[in-house]
Amino acid sequence: MRDERIALSHGSGGRLTHHLIEDMFLRFFDDPILQELNDQAIFRSPSSRIAFTTDSYVVNPIFFPGGDIGKLSVCGTVNDLVVGGAEPLYMSVSFIIEEGLPVTDLERIVASMAETSRKTGIRIVTGDTKVVERNKGDKIFINTTGIGVVRDGIDLSPRHIKPGDVIIVSGTIGDHGIAILTHREGIGMETPVESDCAPLNGLVRDILDGSDGIRAMRDPTRGGLATVLNEFAHQCGLCILVKEEDVPVRDEVRGACEILGFDPLYLANEGKIVVVASEDEASGILDAMRKNPLGREASIIGRVLKEPERKVLIETPVGNRRILDMPSGEQLPRIC
Amino acid sequence: MRDERIALSHGSGGRLTHHLIEDMFLRFFDDPILQELNDQAIFRSPSSRIAFTTDSYVVNPIFFPGGDIGKLSVCGTVNDLVVGGAEPLYMSVSFIIEEGLPVTDLERIVASMAETSRKTGIRIVTGDTKVVERNKGDKIFINTTGIGVVRDGIDLSPRHIKPGDVIIVSGTIGDHGIAILTHREGIGMETPVESDCAPLNGLVRDILDGSDGIRAMRDPTRGGLATVLNEFAHQCGLCILVKEEDVPVRDEVRGACEILGFDPLYLANEGKIVVVASEDEASGILDAMRKNPLGREASIIGRVLKEPERKVLIETPVGNRRILDMPSGEQLPRIC
Repeated sequence: MRDERIALSHGSGGRLTHHLIEDMFLRFFDDPILQELNDQAIFRSPSSRIAFTTDSYVVNPIFFPGGDIGKLSVCGTVNDLVVGGAEPLYMSVSFIIEEGLPVTDLERIVASMAETSRKTGIRIVTGDTKVVERNKGDKIFINTTGIGVVRDGIDLSPRHIKPGDVIIVSGTIGDHGIAILTHREGIGMETPVESDCAPLNGLVRDILDGSDGIRAMRDPTRGGLATVLNEFAHQCGLCILVKEEDVPVRDEVRGACEILGFDPLYLANEGKIVVVASEDEASGILDAMRKNPLGREASIIGRVLKEPERKVLIETPVGNRRILDMPSGEQLPRIC
Repeated sequence: MRDERIALSHGSGGRLTHHLIEDMFLRFFDDPILQELNDQAIFRSPSSRIAFTTDSYVVNPIFFPGGDIGKLSVCGTVNDLVVGGAEPLYMSVSFIIEEGLPVTDLERIVASMAETSRKTGIRIVTGDTKVVERNKGDKIFINTTGIGVVRDGIDLSPRHIKPGDVIIVSGTIGDHGIAILTHREGIGMETPVESDCAPLNGLVRDILDGSDGIRAMRDPTRGGLATVLNEFAHQCGLCILVKEEDVPVRDEVRGACEILGFDPLYLANEGKIVVVASEDEASGILDAMRKNPLGREASIIGRVLKEPERKVLIETPVGNRRILDMPSGEQLPRIC
């Protein structure tokens, strides 16, 4: 099968679909619940508080420096669970494949998903495959939907944010956006930027174990840091003031942004979290983050003010303040 | 917004994405959990046994006699939960939209999903939207992923099937397949066939409440009745013998199949279930089904034999038996 390409009949539900499931998906995703091959996975939940998240991935290109659409889809679902304070447990995987995709490409993606799910401990327990005709899709789209359990005592929500709270970001921003853009457009760089695509369950566990001062967390993916801060400001009804010079940005990313006309604050990240925490807990959280390889460049970038309500302000190094709005047009299509 | 078309920026995660969420999705899907607009939905589960199912819908055309891709996606997820003996509770919705889709088409689909979710009681609690460039998708693809709870004492599995068990189908087969095919290809028919697309939670509740003799259930969607019977035979290691003349098929569907060269046993259904039950409970289950409008034409179509192992046999009206295999080539692409 390895020299083959995906055909419409791989999506027919018949013999070829079953071959694909048995020879490819069950080989890599070897969970006993998935092996039941029922229309639904059934399992016991160790807690009654369930977290549930979905994302479809349409990133172009499907292989990029630092990752691929498969790794991205597992990391994205894990990260969306952990920022809600949930422990990732189970996930579904649904493929929409364009006819003609080389089977070796699918295998590479499936292997990457299997590896990432093993690393993070999330179990792939149910799935689906559809195939569409050439030019009715684009290589492969993946939906991953995750279930996690929320630990007792944890209740994270932007509504808990209070004036005086501190904004922490777990590392440099814009890496994923620039990695995808430069790779897609064939822009050569002296030091190529890799996507930061990574599962954040370990990092989040470290800070949740060490502090009860965390109000809210979110991962600044599509729409970037500026979008997450605006969502926070909107949902708590307060103002967030960010100091531009305190936001960590790699030199290569800053350089690429200047040449290409992008603002790193709006670029997607796939391995970062933004945390809002009480002032007295902030330095402890920062220390805990920095001890984790994925949070080594964590920084305090701003704080929460009473007003202007529902606004994000950014202060330049010379002290000027301007409103940091949500992105209004298309930044980069198909970044995740 | 109603005269507009979906643009790439509706998928950017920025201002236009937020408009779409607030003006369209939250207007129709008005669940308080969804309104939290967090990256994950958090809720309490009333039982520790959870059922979990996913499907992506790529049906072409997106509007067809008897339904649309939105109704189909909600029914499909509800049905995949109920055939596992689960009560549908929560679902996610993830859209992959081709740039240029009229906003009114999206609204019609979203309204149809909202109506179907209200009818079935499943709550839409989290979602995602991506937009791809023209000719990199096809109007709209929808992933729905559902969570249900399994009632105490219920344990359905093809592995419980025993020799002597009876096979029941809840009504006529092939309606959805012929509805999609004739509508897509513009084949005029004297009596146009409508898709049977329907949520089966009520019908399944009726039979589960009335009998503890149900071994396994499945909905014969893509791949049709023949595929489900083969899956059953494979998973229980026994033989299933079907009497061809007992399988209910509408005259219009039979006629269309003869002209177009299809076999109704391989055509997709979206509002039917196949039940395997103990012999002594079969007539009670049949009666319960026939009292429900969605099971009025329920029929006993066959039974389970010891051998030949893992095979499905079909007996013609004159008594000849042949093997009914899984479909091996492409039957009908993009049927669901």
